[in-house]
Amino acid sequence: MDLNKLFKAKNIAIVGVSKNPKKPGHVIFRNLVESNFQGKVFLVNPNAYQLLNKYVYKSLLSIKEQIDLAIITVPARLVPNIIKDCRKKKIEDVIIISSGFKEIGNNKLENEINLLLNKFNIKCIGANSLGIFDAYAKFDSLLLPRINFKRPKKGSISFLSQSGSVGAAFLDLLTKEDYGISKFISYGNATNLDESDILEFLLEDKDTRVICLYLEDVKDGQKFLKIAKKVSKNKPIIAMKALADETYFAAFKQANIINANSLREMLDFARILEKAVISKGNRIQVITNGFGYGLIAKNEILKSDLKLAILDDKKNLLKKQLSSLNVIGNPLNLSNICNTEDYRLSIKFCLNDNNSDILLLIIVYQSPLLDENILDVIIEENNLKKKPIIIVSTGGEFSDSLKRSLEEKNIVSFTFPDEAVRAIKTLIDYYSRK
Amino acid sequence: MDLNKLFKAKNIAIVGVSKNPKKPGHVIFRNLVESNFQGKVFLVNPNAYQLLNKYVYKSLLSIKEQIDLAIITVPARLVPNIIKDCRKKKIEDVIIISSGFKEIGNNKLENEINLLLNKFNIKCIGANSLGIFDAYAKFDSLLLPRINFKRPKKGSISFLSQSGSVGAAFLDLLTKEDYGISKFISYGNATNLDESDILEFLLEDKDTRVICLYLEDVKDGQKFLKIAKKVSKNKPIIAMKALADETYFAAFKQANIINANSLREMLDFARILEKAVISKGNRIQVITNGFGYGLIAKNEILKSDLKLAILDDKKNLLKKQLSSLNVIGNPLNLSNICNTEDYRLSIKFCLNDNNSDILLLIIVYQSPLLDENILDVIIEENNLKKKPIIIVSTGGEFSDSLKRSLEEKNIVSFTFPDEAVRAIKTLIDYYSRK
Repeated sequence: MDLNKLFKAKNIAIVGVSKNPKKPGHVIFRNLVESNFQGKVFLVNPNAYQLLNKYVYKSLLSIKEQIDLAIITVPARLVPNIIKDCRKKKIEDVIIISSGFKEIGNNKLENEINLLLNKFNIKCIGANSLGIFDAYAKFDSLLLPRINFKRPKKGSISFLSQSGSVGAAFLDLLTKEDYGISKFISYGNATNLDESDILEFLLEDKDTRVICLYLEDVKDGQKFLKIAKKVSKNKPIIAMKALADETYFAAFKQANIINANSLREMLDFARILEKAVISKGNRIQVITNGFGYGLIAKNEILKSDLKLAILDDKKNLLKKQLSSLNVIGNPLNLSNICNTEDYRLSIKFCLNDNNSDILLLIIVYQSPLLDENILDVIIEENNLKKKPIIIVSTGGEFSDSLKRSLEEKNIVSFTFPDEAVRAIKTLIDYYSRK
Repeated sequence: MDLNKLFKAKNIAIVGVSKNPKKPGHVIFRNLVESNFQGKVFLVNPNAYQLLNKYVYKSLLSIKEQIDLAIITVPARLVPNIIKDCRKKKIEDVIIISSGFKEIGNNKLENEINLLLNKFNIKCIGANSLGIFDAYAKFDSLLLPRINFKRPKKGSISFLSQSGSVGAAFLDLLTKEDYGISKFISYGNATNLDESDILEFLLEDKDTRVICLYLEDVKDGQKFLKIAKKVSKNKPIIAMKALADETYFAAFKQANIINANSLREMLDFARILEKAVISKGNRIQVITNGFGYGLIAKNEILKSDLKLAILDDKKNLLKKQLSSLNVIGNPLNLSNICNTEDYRLSIKFCLNDNNSDILLLIIVYQSPLLDENILDVIIEENNLKKKPIIIVSTGGEFSDSLKRSLEEKNIVSFTFPDEAVRAIKTLIDYYSRK
């Protein structure tokens, strides 16, 4: 489904703009302005004449210019007439923000607008949508006031959510955690365009590398399976389904869709798939300066059906070079009084060892002999692109700042070892099945 | 085991203080100074004469004053002689920070110091300890430089960790997440005092209400079971065991120890047990302004063997009072355009309804019609102490600031609905078995 016209609309009309700054049309208008939207915005309300120094049209039909996209925010019962106006005005793309359709049991009104949209061949996101956001096109039509909710930076994750509330809260969290987003699409009731249509669009979207999908139901199972299979051959889809059952899990597996059991997992999986180097091999080598953290990682590796790598015999040479007490195995434990040079030697050794595929680097930054140079060591070794290097670090502000520096270089950090291992498992499984 | 003398030591000697500011003895000395320790600190090193304007003694024996506690940071091979000095100096309590004993396979040296400690009747935390921290006594002997790692505020959670690395990283995270701590004890190799001895001490500690325990092994199973049973009758113990097996899970259950499958769960469980009102009833009522979030909560309630409460018939009266579109059931869905008053009415109704025991309040703060008054509503209703109120909110800085305001009033917030439900399940199970 080609939605480029909808996403690249230049002339946008917001239908149902109120003077009350908390009402949907008003919130969306302000967001378009504050996001530096480069096109033209037209406001429509039969009662209002002027709003924030802008002329308000009595109806869509009284606008002279061609409109590319109508964003509809009027009460549900008025929506059918607005759709008819769109037809008259030759508008081919709409977003329906209005709610009060099948999501509260009003199937009659839902069917009515569905029939109209089909008859007029209008493409529609919604009804009951929270809007869409495109970090590259500077297009922000979200029903979320920017004053309290910052927007994410540009990136390559797109998030597709049936639920507005999950979408809103999750987007806000993604922003706080410094994820980069391409597109956010709240598709609500999928009255006309459904999850499959939008997935197909994201397959062609050059700014999207990883797709996150929050589902409550699937409108057309066969269509979904067919399109998801095609999409996941090129881009990973991470899906979370509320009230999922075995049928869904089987379908996800068949289409190589990654199942997230929680939004927390969706966060972790998106990050590793966006940033990590491709890996099919499943032999993990753990390096740690904390025995306990190493043990938690080992535990999860064994549970996850991954392999603990077995170091080359040359490991005795490494042992002689290290300054601190250590146990050279898997985990390779450098102990809490190791220094940055011990890490450098160990990372280099493991990257050159042919017996492992992925390096899980646990760093307890709190250890007194470690300093910020550890960042340079990791970035330097990672630049050689020999194996994916995944970091685990837990802590406060200092750990967070180091973590962010690494993520700027596309090196992923996780808070806990078990969460990192599950994300690694997902990475390997996706590329093995692809 | 009475460890009050150890924790309330007034005259402390640090044995093995180096001029190098990154070395253990030096780090610990600075921490004691910077934490405004109210007692006297004596430094010991055979080579040094002056450090940070402080006299350095050649040995413990050259100090004239009585010493209450020796913190030993010398290389492992020198530890036996220092213990002998402690005996001569009549020191009854020590912390051994030094590592290089059984944790790296040096069982001979471990046994040697164990025999000495027993023979001389010296109480010892460690070896291979990261130190102890007491937020109330201003006693900070941690091997963690304060410059990068802030310390937590006062609170009622005590954390007991066999692993120094897990302890350090987790304490740093607890601080960032604004948890309040009573005592942090890294007991390392448990050469002399083991986890059971320290649990017994925490049972009597008036500043501790909830105990977190990170274990790698248990030294004496029967002793542990006996003491843990006694402790958990009064204070919840949340334990995480690396490489746990069925035997451990069975023992935990028998002693009413709460099993945390991950450090993330330990965080969640500690928070709810510290702050929430006691509850044995398991009928949960969910109120939400996001259908999707409500669905995730419902899903987890059904999976967790908890009950979805069934609202009283008077619910139709509530329906008439609400301003927004809504579905009055469980979840009680107020939709994304509800306002603060809708929440107030719904919370009041559910607190007065006899068909539920716990209120799970999901608030998507991102909704445009909600404002900060929602805090006053929640705090006011919670003050009536009719039922535990647990909050779910996900998001960025704005959500976080609201969350912190609630936690100051002892109202717990979780990031995701499923994590909240698992924490509620833990709360109910603990009090039902107690």
